[in-house]
Amino acid sequence: MSAATKSANKATVTTPADREIRIERTFDAPRDRVWRAFTDPKLLAQWWGRGNKLVIEKFELERGGHWRFVEHGPEGKHGFEGRFREITPPSRVVQTFEWDGMPGYVIIETMELEDLGDGRTRIVNVSLFHTTEERDGMLQSGMEEGLNQSYEALDRLLATLE
Amino acid sequence: MSAATKSANKATVTTPADREIRIERTFDAPRDRVWRAFTDPKLLAQWWGRGNKLVIEKFELERGGHWRFVEHGPEGKHGFEGRFREITPPSRVVQTFEWDGMPGYVIIETMELEDLGDGRTRIVNVSLFHTTEERDGMLQSGMEEGLNQSYEALDRLLATLE
Repeated sequence: MSAATKSANKATVTTPADREIRIERTFDAPRDRVWRAFTDPKLLAQWWGRGNKLVIEKFELERGGHWRFVEHGPEGKHGFEGRFREITPPSRVVQTFEWDGMPGYVIIETMELEDLGDGRTRIVNVSLFHTTEERDGMLQSGMEEGLNQSYEALDRLLATLE
Repeated sequence: MSAATKSANKATVTTPADREIRIERTFDAPRDRVWRAFTDPKLLAQWWGRGNKLVIEKFELERGGHWRFVEHGPEGKHGFEGRFREITPPSRVVQTFEWDGMPGYVIIETMELEDLGDGRTRIVNVSLFHTTEERDGMLQSGMEEGLNQSYEALDRLLATLE
C-alpha cells in the first residue's frame, strides 16, 4: 500500500453539532464481513484495542445487554463499558460508552454501516455527549490517533476473513 | 399533619434548561440523617421504591462504582441502574441513572443536600438528559407522582431515625 493510499484511508472526524463527533471511514470489505468484525467478540478482540491485548469481559449483544472491555496497553490497563440500546443487523448499533477513567461520563454512540455496492463498506459513527466540554475533552484526548490505529488493525483483520 | 402542610411539602419540579429537570424538597431532619437515608442501602431500600419492595442488587458507593435496584410493584418489576461519578459526604452525589425499560438512555443526576441550620435539610436534584425529548418523556411518565410517594416514605423513615 502506498503512503498516499494509506493517508487517504484515515478516518474523517468532524463536529456537526456542539455536542457531537462524527467519524466516517471506508473499509475494503463487504458489509456482512464488517458487521461480523463488530459483533463477534472473538473478532472484535483482534482490532478494537489498537492492536493491544483486549479482554472482553462482557458482550451481551441484545437490547439492554451490557458490554465491558479491558485494553492491556504498554502504559497499563484501561476499562471501557456500556449498554446496548439498539442492534439492527447488518447495519446499525446504538450503545452507550464510558471509560473507567471518567466514570459516569456517558457517550451515546450510533454506528451505521453503509453497503457501497462495490464490495466496500462505509462506517459512520456519531457520538453524542452530555456537554460540549466533554466532547472537546474527547477530541483532545488523542482519540483520533487511537481510532486510526484500531481501524488499521481492522483493515488487516478484514483482509483475512472470507 | 394537616392537609395544607402536606400539600406545602410536595417536591417543586422545574425545568431550568432545555435538557434539565430540577427537583427541590425540604425534609424535617438534620443533613447527616438525610445523608444516611440516601447512602445506607438498608435505609434506601425502605423509601426509594415509593413504598414498594425494593431489592438492592448492587450498591458500590464509590467513584466508578455501580448501583442496581429492582422495584417490585403491583404492576410488575422495574430495574434501575447506574454508576457513581462523585460522592462527597455529607452533601453531594453525582451518578448516572437508567431505567431497564429504556436501556441506554442515560440521565446524569446531581443531588445536593443543604443544611438549613434549623434541623431541616433541603434536597436539590438536577437531572441532565442527552436530549430535550428524553427530558419531556420523563416529565410525562408520572415521575412527579412517584417522586412524591418516595419522598413521603422518606419522611416517615426519617421520623424513626436518631
